[in-house]
Amino acid sequence: MSDDPNFDISIIGEGRIPSPLKGVYFAKDKDRLIFHSCLSEVNDCLEISKPIPSFEKAGPREKIYFDPSKLKCGIVTCGGLCPGLNSVIRAIVLCLHHNYGVRTVYGFPYGYEGLTYRYGHQPVELTPALVDRIHEQGGTILGSSRGNQDISEMVDTLEQMNIGILFAIGGDGTLRGAGAIAGEIEKRGLKTSVIGIPKTIDNDISYIQRSFGFATAVSEAGRAINSAHTEAQGARNGIGLVKLMGRESGFIATFAALAYSDLNFCLIPEVPFTIEGFLKALDQRLERSRHAVIVVAEGAGQDILGDTGQRDASGNIRYQDIGIFLKDKIQAYFKQKAKEITLKYIDPSYTIRSVPADANDSAFCLLLGQNAVHAGMAGRTNMVVGFWVNEFTHVPIQLATSARKKVDPDGSVWNSVLTATGQPKEMR
Amino acid sequence: MSDDPNFDISIIGEGRIPSPLKGVYFAKDKDRLIFHSCLSEVNDCLEISKPIPSFEKAGPREKIYFDPSKLKCGIVTCGGLCPGLNSVIRAIVLCLHHNYGVRTVYGFPYGYEGLTYRYGHQPVELTPALVDRIHEQGGTILGSSRGNQDISEMVDTLEQMNIGILFAIGGDGTLRGAGAIAGEIEKRGLKTSVIGIPKTIDNDISYIQRSFGFATAVSEAGRAINSAHTEAQGARNGIGLVKLMGRESGFIATFAALAYSDLNFCLIPEVPFTIEGFLKALDQRLERSRHAVIVVAEGAGQDILGDTGQRDASGNIRYQDIGIFLKDKIQAYFKQKAKEITLKYIDPSYTIRSVPADANDSAFCLLLGQNAVHAGMAGRTNMVVGFWVNEFTHVPIQLATSARKKVDPDGSVWNSVLTATGQPKEMR
Amino acid sequence: MSDDPNFDISIIGEGRIPSPLKGVYFAKDKDRLIFHSCLSEVNDCLEISKPIPSFEKAGPREKIYFDPSKLKCGIVTCGGLCPGLNSVIRAIVLCLHHNYGVRTVYGFPYGYEGLTYRYGHQPVELTPALVDRIHEQGGTILGSSRGNQDISEMVDTLEQMNIGILFAIGGDGTLRGAGAIAGEIEKRGLKTSVIGIPKTIDNDISYIQRSFGFATAVSEAGRAINSAHTEAQGARNGIGLVKLMGRESGFIATFAALAYSDLNFCLIPEVPFTIEGFLKALDQRLERSRHAVIVVAEGAGQDILGDTGQRDASGNIRYQDIGIFLKDKIQAYFKQKAKEITLKYIDPSYTIRSVPADANDSAFCLLLGQNAVHAGMAGRTNMVVGFWVNEFTHVPIQLATSARKKVDPDGSVWNSVLTATGQPKEMR
Amino acid sequence: MSDDPNFDISIIGEGRIPSPLKGVYFAKDKDRLIFHSCLSEVNDCLEISKPIPSFEKAGPREKIYFDPSKLKCGIVTCGGLCPGLNSVIRAIVLCLHHNYGVRTVYGFPYGYEGLTYRYGHQPVELTPALVDRIHEQGGTILGSSRGNQDISEMVDTLEQMNIGILFAIGGDGTLRGAGAIAGEIEKRGLKTSVIGIPKTIDNDISYIQRSFGFATAVSEAGRAINSAHTEAQGARNGIGLVKLMGRESGFIATFAALAYSDLNFCLIPEVPFTIEGFLKALDQRLERSRHAVIVVAEGAGQDILGDTGQRDASGNIRYQDIGIFLKDKIQAYFKQKAKEITLKYIDPSYTIRSVPADANDSAFCLLLGQNAVHAGMAGRTNMVVGFWVNEFTHVPIQLATSARKKVDPDGSVWNSVLTATGQPKEMR
Repeated sequence: MSDDPNFDISIIGEGRIPSPLKGVYFAKDKDRLIFHSCLSEVNDCLEISKPIPSFEKAGPREKIYFDPSKLKCGIVTCGGLCPGLNSVIRAIVLCLHHNYGVRTVYGFPYGYEGLTYRYGHQPVELTPALVDRIHEQGGTILGSSRGNQDISEMVDTLEQMNIGILFAIGGDGTLRGAGAIAGEIEKRGLKTSVIGIPKTIDNDISYIQRSFGFATAVSEAGRAINSAHTEAQGARNGIGLVKLMGRESGFIATFAALAYSDLNFCLIPEVPFTIEGFLKALDQRLERSRHAVIVVAEGAGQDILGDTGQRDASGNIRYQDIGIFLKDKIQAYFKQKAKEITLKYIDPSYTIRSVPADANDSAFCLLLGQNAVHAGMAGRTNMVVGFWVNEFTHVPIQLATSARKKVDPDGSVWNSVLTATGQPKEMR
Repeated sequence: MSDDPNFDISIIGEGRIPSPLKGVYFAKDKDRLIFHSCLSEVNDCLEISKPIPSFEKAGPREKIYFDPSKLKCGIVTCGGLCPGLNSVIRAIVLCLHHNYGVRTVYGFPYGYEGLTYRYGHQPVELTPALVDRIHEQGGTILGSSRGNQDISEMVDTLEQMNIGILFAIGGDGTLRGAGAIAGEIEKRGLKTSVIGIPKTIDNDISYIQRSFGFATAVSEAGRAINSAHTEAQGARNGIGLVKLMGRESGFIATFAALAYSDLNFCLIPEVPFTIEGFLKALDQRLERSRHAVIVVAEGAGQDILGDTGQRDASGNIRYQDIGIFLKDKIQAYFKQKAKEITLKYIDPSYTIRSVPADANDSAFCLLLGQNAVHAGMAGRTNMVVGFWVNEFTHVPIQLATSARKKVDPDGSVWNSVLTATGQPKEMR
Repeated sequence: MSDDPNFDISIIGEGRIPSPLKGVYFAKDKDRLIFHSCLSEVNDCLEISKPIPSFEKAGPREKIYFDPSKLKCGIVTCGGLCPGLNSVIRAIVLCLHHNYGVRTVYGFPYGYEGLTYRYGHQPVELTPALVDRIHEQGGTILGSSRGNQDISEMVDTLEQMNIGILFAIGGDGTLRGAGAIAGEIEKRGLKTSVIGIPKTIDNDISYIQRSFGFATAVSEAGRAINSAHTEAQGARNGIGLVKLMGRESGFIATFAALAYSDLNFCLIPEVPFTIEGFLKALDQRLERSRHAVIVVAEGAGQDILGDTGQRDASGNIRYQDIGIFLKDKIQAYFKQKAKEITLKYIDPSYTIRSVPADANDSAFCLLLGQNAVHAGMAGRTNMVVGFWVNEFTHVPIQLATSARKKVDPDGSVWNSVLTATGQPKEMR
Repeated sequence: MSDDPNFDISIIGEGRIPSPLKGVYFAKDKDRLIFHSCLSEVNDCLEISKPIPSFEKAGPREKIYFDPSKLKCGIVTCGGLCPGLNSVIRAIVLCLHHNYGVRTVYGFPYGYEGLTYRYGHQPVELTPALVDRIHEQGGTILGSSRGNQDISEMVDTLEQMNIGILFAIGGDGTLRGAGAIAGEIEKRGLKTSVIGIPKTIDNDISYIQRSFGFATAVSEAGRAINSAHTEAQGARNGIGLVKLMGRESGFIATFAALAYSDLNFCLIPEVPFTIEGFLKALDQRLERSRHAVIVVAEGAGQDILGDTGQRDASGNIRYQDIGIFLKDKIQAYFKQKAKEITLKYIDPSYTIRSVPADANDSAFCLLLGQNAVHAGMAGRTNMVVGFWVNEFTHVPIQLATSARKKVDPDGSVWNSVLTATGQPKEMR
């Protein structure tokens, strides 16, 4: 994380209009949430008389910046699917309409493509009736696409359509794009707020403790793991190999290992291993138990694979496929040892990410979308809605995209994984 | 189907011992179930004075052949996983113990391997306590393997272990193997009954209207189809492609198309198509609707792919993978047309076949296993337990393996698929 | 069942217009399905030269009676909820529109109420867009009500709205009502077809082997049974008591007992018991195992309870609640014996009947609705669509409502229940 | 909450033996977690030079108090069922065995009853093999009971069996009992640690932000709510009424209202209403929409009902049943207005609380159980394992039982409920 993180939130303009919300608690400027949760960290600050770092708290403000009766808003969803996208869209639309009385909300189709001219996509008007039941479907009714588009062209669209608040739901790349849009808006002197809603199924954004869809993904991963276990048990020297999401951080694989008791190996990007070390441990496991179940996060073992030199449309490094690589290596190893095995490889990524949000993620998405609306109405910009110590927060886009959250290989959670799986701490 | 099917069931010996079952309906010799259900077919028989073909009805007999107090039984599960395997094992064990008082039931591990010496597998004693809750897990607690083993060696094992009834749960190849075992037993003059329980997730055995696990598989296929639909809708020109089971017969894909309304194409072995015809229809669909969902049975389009000349351990022809083939062809076609598409390919086979039986399949497996026990106790052999016009039947192994059941491309069910998907009747 | 059942189907008029369906198999007059499945029953007929009884087969006809371009249709759903109602509505609407080109389909709201003037309900126009995804919700989008309305008034409505085919989805009472409507129509010399779709979650209609929603209900009942088992095991002398549907016939409870292994008692209307006999058996079970799980069908033990003399709006006898009765009796019995028990009573009826159809019921409902449309278009009337020996059939309303299907207390299925639960055959 | 809360944790004795755990992060004394998360609260402390209140962090310690080779432990589960009980039992047993090498762990059957002589319950030895898959079942394999037993007698049992650590899993009453046991132990000068694991499906313990099973319960409540909605829509003036758990605090009902969009009224203990106010709002809702769905927490409206003067075996006040009360009042109100309604009442409590933990609760239970073991091994006593700002903590039993967590009727979460349901803020 950043050494000297900046928690200050930008504004389009001060609140000036009384909020139409009635009988609610309005967040005050002094309502700040401490970044540190350990007493020693706070004491460290106090000792050197450094201010205690803290987040602005999310929530409705007594005075808002935008006049609801004249405001037009836009929503865009970018990058890969994630459970809860439709729930967030719905929450934003319903809160704008019912709480603030905003009448016009556009959905831009197919990610940032929808903000340009060149694809010919037409914005969709999002009414309460249209979004009423969309949270029961997975995916995004707006469609999505990867990658950024020309910033200037996108701001042209916002300007021409007179959009007051743009809600951008997406991952790291999308949020950087949203930051660039906010920068161009500021340069042009426009009064358009840009509010990001962080979407990361991997739950790997620093400064944000929970991201929507992650819990649903861990649940859904259970099906593939159960299958892998059943297949592995059903054959002599049966091996079930499951590839899960997790490009930079192995939280899904880690929590799957805690939630499902049938895993014997959990491989994540944060914990390096050699292929020889892993195969030896796998062989020993088969000797002991005649079957094995392995979960590998897609970003694990990248030092083994090497960079392909390619990048996808979102700018992410395109790695070799660790799942296929492991499958081939395992089969070659036992073939050479003349030990018959039966390996079943399962890649459930699309099935996981396309389910609707479960009940708890649904409730979370509702609150997340509402807080995004409150932030935008209050004139905040160039920020995302975060979640910290059980409260929603405002986080500058730059801060949110400055570092990845990682599983700590020396921490208690990973230690519980080692206990749960029985895998060696070191596989080298 | 066979022109002159033989419905006669072989016996080890006549029933001679009063059944220990009390207060139940005992099936009589005259309880036969008509093979034909159409009046005209029966009338055709009557006209030419041909006997009306019929199945022996399953169920307990008043006199049984084996003395329960001395009987030892064996169970073996072969081939790929299928929902309900453990339910059938459990039903056999519980019925032998609780209804007939048989004390010794062995499970042979890892399919026919477990009946030979060479793998060193030890038979497992299956007690009511051991099998009590196994139906809640997918797969088979016995393990499985593909392919037949040396017939003579397997009969040696049965002879040495003094097995009176062997229950063989498996598909076409397994049942042929069971028939060969029964033949060798007869040649040696042994008194061992061989009862097959047909396992075909594809539901493609002629002379049997319902096979266990099929309904569960259709249900479970829904997850992959929903994902494919969500992914397809989430992208510009999104295509979701799902490969389902169905080597020779496309019943799973067909019923999935009836059960799930989001399919636009259903490709099955029984309905030939050309790749050009299919791609043209797909292109037109994208023009109309900007997304498409395709289900392809693994055995579809084999005339397009050609035989690889290989066979798997069960002796099944090893086809090229139609899923990968279609994926490549679709991508190449649109690339050449410079039309950007997003294709997501999902192969859920392992996840489908490894779930436990659903409630209705569970009840079916219970009755199926019980009827297998009744048949064996009554001295029947070289037969499988079938299901016909809502009743359990006895079917000679030779008859059951003589022909495949197929989806009728001119029948009403396939016609409903065409209506439900909107796909052209001919894609050539 | 009726001694001399009449299988003849009434018609409004002969087919006269070529069907617009292309490339499908058209059912012929000779396509009849034999009512008997046992060879001996057929032989009995032959001996006395009685015609073999048979059903007219369902399916599209080459010539239809109604001119699709001028036809208006109506749909009504009556009685209690059942999984699959919306699937059937959807199938009828889509088949009328897409296969036959019928443009106008009305839904009458809230059952037969919607066919009268007095409630002021307005018919809803059912378009393909409106019904597209309704099968994903339980219940009926049309709403329902119990009981019949004035026949003459309902036929007035049909006449004034110029309805050509009325599809009535409902149970015994509804179908009798539909028969009365058809009678009045005939009396008036109108050309309106009345096609019933039998709805019985209890699966208790004679002459029909499968009714939609039953399989889903058995599945869904599993949740309550699992809860009852968990609660029973969690307490000293824990008793879980679950009341399931089944007014006249205990098929749901019976198949639940086959599907779920945790049941210790299954009480159904077909098998009488005394409260003393049952309590004694329950006490013995607690002595042996310290917990017990009981399923009781709502119509069980009515001879014990006695008729309340009341009837509900559908005309069904209103029984005392056997669930509450048993709960009270059990608690009183053990209190008097000073034996501490913990009883948990679960009545999951609404939760079961309001779920959407599962995959297999969905496919079944699609075909059922399509066959109802084919029957109506071909001029059939005063009939329901049935299912027999794996095929859809036409069944006269009078025949379908003439008798209840029952669980045979001496048959093999109930015998399997006794084995599965371990309950005494007689509890008297 | 307490004005001057005491966060100090009692110990049996200082750590003296090196922990057998290898390669893990050992929690240090300075690892304390701040109780306040708002900056202003911390600043308030600093201003008056009051120490910042903080929790001791959970986790393994470098030195432990008990010698694993000689240690015997006991586990007891008390009160009503809650998803995850078996997961916690399993985590404790596996961590004691595999991480610390403790060989003897007893389960005391049926709650505190199992710690007395009088019921004759025998302790069960809990081995890793026995607990291996218990987390897949709901309930508790130990059984449970309500209420406390004689403290002295229970400590006698612990003393005679030489129990070093007692793990007590239960709610408020259970934890008070555990505190009393710890007190008696101290009085006798014994060296037995008492570690509580707080079980509250209502998530209503102050000083603990998350309790196991709560999230699963919110998920599971969705089935009943969907049913209620389907039933309500299926009838003219249909009303679906669902009673959920929540004696003192309405968190389950509150989060259900956020998670499921079909609720129109959410009634919780924290928000008073009059029956007249509620009925008027309900009537207006029916006028607008013809159907309504209501969720009521079991503790809502107690001022309306009045205390029955009774208490259950756990000492909880026994309220009148608000669900039945509302049902009767609603029916009487509309009957008197001669407005026909159809009300369906669903009480899913047993079905909800008896399911197994979902994936996320499973992972949580694993970590919770492990941290309970770490605390006990380190010699902590008279405490529960809590969860605060994303970390596990140690909380004195007295503090944990000193106050209930409540939904804030003026806070943002309840405000979101009002928006989501559309119900009036005041119903008086």
